[in-house]
Amino acid sequence: MSVDPYMRGRMTERKSYVPPFELGKPLDGACISKVVESKNNQFAVGDYVLGMNGWREYWISDGSSNSGVTKIDPNLGPIQFFLGIFGMPGLTAYVGLLKIGQLKEGETVLVSAASGAVGSVVCQIAKAKGCYVIGSAGSKEKVSWLINDAGIDYAFNYKEFKDDISTELGKVYQSDGIDLYFDNVGGKHLEAALDHMKTFGRIILCGMISQYNATSPTPGPANIFLAITKRLKLQGFIVRDYYDMLNQFHADMTKWVNEGKIKWKETVFEGLENAPKAFIALFNGENFGKTLVKIGPD
Amino acid sequence: MSVDPYMRGRMTERKSYVPPFELGKPLDGACISKVVESKNNQFAVGDYVLGMNGWREYWISDGSSNSGVTKIDPNLGPIQFFLGIFGMPGLTAYVGLLKIGQLKEGETVLVSAASGAVGSVVCQIAKAKGCYVIGSAGSKEKVSWLINDAGIDYAFNYKEFKDDISTELGKVYQSDGIDLYFDNVGGKHLEAALDHMKTFGRIILCGMISQYNATSPTPGPANIFLAITKRLKLQGFIVRDYYDMLNQFHADMTKWVNEGKIKWKETVFEGLENAPKAFIALFNGENFGKTLVKIGPD
Repeated sequence: MSVDPYMRGRMTERKSYVPPFELGKPLDGACISKVVESKNNQFAVGDYVLGMNGWREYWISDGSSNSGVTKIDPNLGPIQFFLGIFGMPGLTAYVGLLKIGQLKEGETVLVSAASGAVGSVVCQIAKAKGCYVIGSAGSKEKVSWLINDAGIDYAFNYKEFKDDISTELGKVYQSDGIDLYFDNVGGKHLEAALDHMKTFGRIILCGMISQYNATSPTPGPANIFLAITKRLKLQGFIVRDYYDMLNQFHADMTKWVNEGKIKWKETVFEGLENAPKAFIALFNGENFGKTLVKIGPD
Repeated sequence: MSVDPYMRGRMTERKSYVPPFELGKPLDGACISKVVESKNNQFAVGDYVLGMNGWREYWISDGSSNSGVTKIDPNLGPIQFFLGIFGMPGLTAYVGLLKIGQLKEGETVLVSAASGAVGSVVCQIAKAKGCYVIGSAGSKEKVSWLINDAGIDYAFNYKEFKDDISTELGKVYQSDGIDLYFDNVGGKHLEAALDHMKTFGRIILCGMISQYNATSPTPGPANIFLAITKRLKLQGFIVRDYYDMLNQFHADMTKWVNEGKIKWKETVFEGLENAPKAFIALFNGENFGKTLVKIGPD
């Protein structure tokens, strides 16, 4: 099963694009499962399916078209890829960068949470598109992976710069600034990016993980006025509005994976009892790449 | 001559879309002037011209194509209209609403600094386009003018609500929120608007007058995360990037003015010696509509 930052929002009682989790009921979320019994001739025992019934060991579905259950092809890669590069995080990166961000070859791209499930794919799609890519991550190991494995141009450990990410950022980009900032973090990262955006730059608002556990209001970027003087566009998006791009995404991503252009990192926790630990790790930065929980036998 | 909020930015030494004013030199800005002497046969004595040589009584130009001096037609309306509804503020409203904001008929529109030079035109173009228009302004008189003269649907005096503009706003819009927010103010207004935007709403970042005199960093919107969950687009713009729309703008604006759809309010200060007072009035909210300074005889 997948653990994802967006689940944190579902732990607050409020109107949003997904309903909150309900007290006394199991959590849910994306998972890959193996069919162990079937009365639906579209699904045979042994088939692998993608469903929204994570956070449990077994589940029942009628497999109808609106059940959200779809068969996956285990020959395309390890089955958990459908929770990652072939799944929601991969599509998020693809839609954000290409559809919302309208990425152009040769641009300078900044990515925060760059070694995460979404960020790492953003970095590598941007590299595949011939861009200069700068990534921010939270440890030396992540920075090293981004440069040596993901092959981006520059990466830094933001924890070394505390409140002054902006000064660090000012030293590293090419030419006169950043064309596209893919924001997974918000807060000080968004503020630093605003300082260094080029005129007519685009900021893709995908996530703001720095704020999800805040217990009091967190100040927004003090320099938001730069969005006017630099004529910036800031745009938020939710991946599920773009499921019509799934086929195009699968075609491109399969090609990039086959060409060796996409490296992938996972942190796997074992057992449902460790799912809360896995989830909390997302916010502590203890995860690396896609965070997964393996439940039951292979 | 015109006094405009953007001039405040030119009083800070920093890189921006217009160079800062220089110490020991006159300020400058848009003005309408009468030709008193001419050696250029394109300009006759008595002609009226639009130039960028405000903050002085007389000025000299060769009138060449890159001098920024253009003849205006005094038959189209009072000459100062070319500093207002037919000039930069009018074009700003037009570009922001129609080009950047892609305004659609019947939408719910929120405008801050709604009785100002830009805001009042925004309100009335939106009304001409069949929208439901809500305006925020800083006095009872302005609110009354917005409803009774400009004919918008709802207006409120934000000073009555201090830090809780959001609650007031929650009471006044139609259906499920605001489609388009035209921001001239920033700060608490932007935060309140974010609270009440519809999914896929657009925020046009035109000005942030609440922050121009700040002596320390002003916190940005604490609820900027709503831009993600509501899939909002926030876009800054500078009118001079859109001078190619000037002809289309003049055609539409002349039509609207002739149809009586655009009401106009001015605050005129007399004499160059009162220009600083006029400028400061912009930030105190003592102005009403377009702020002008009349220098010399008619």
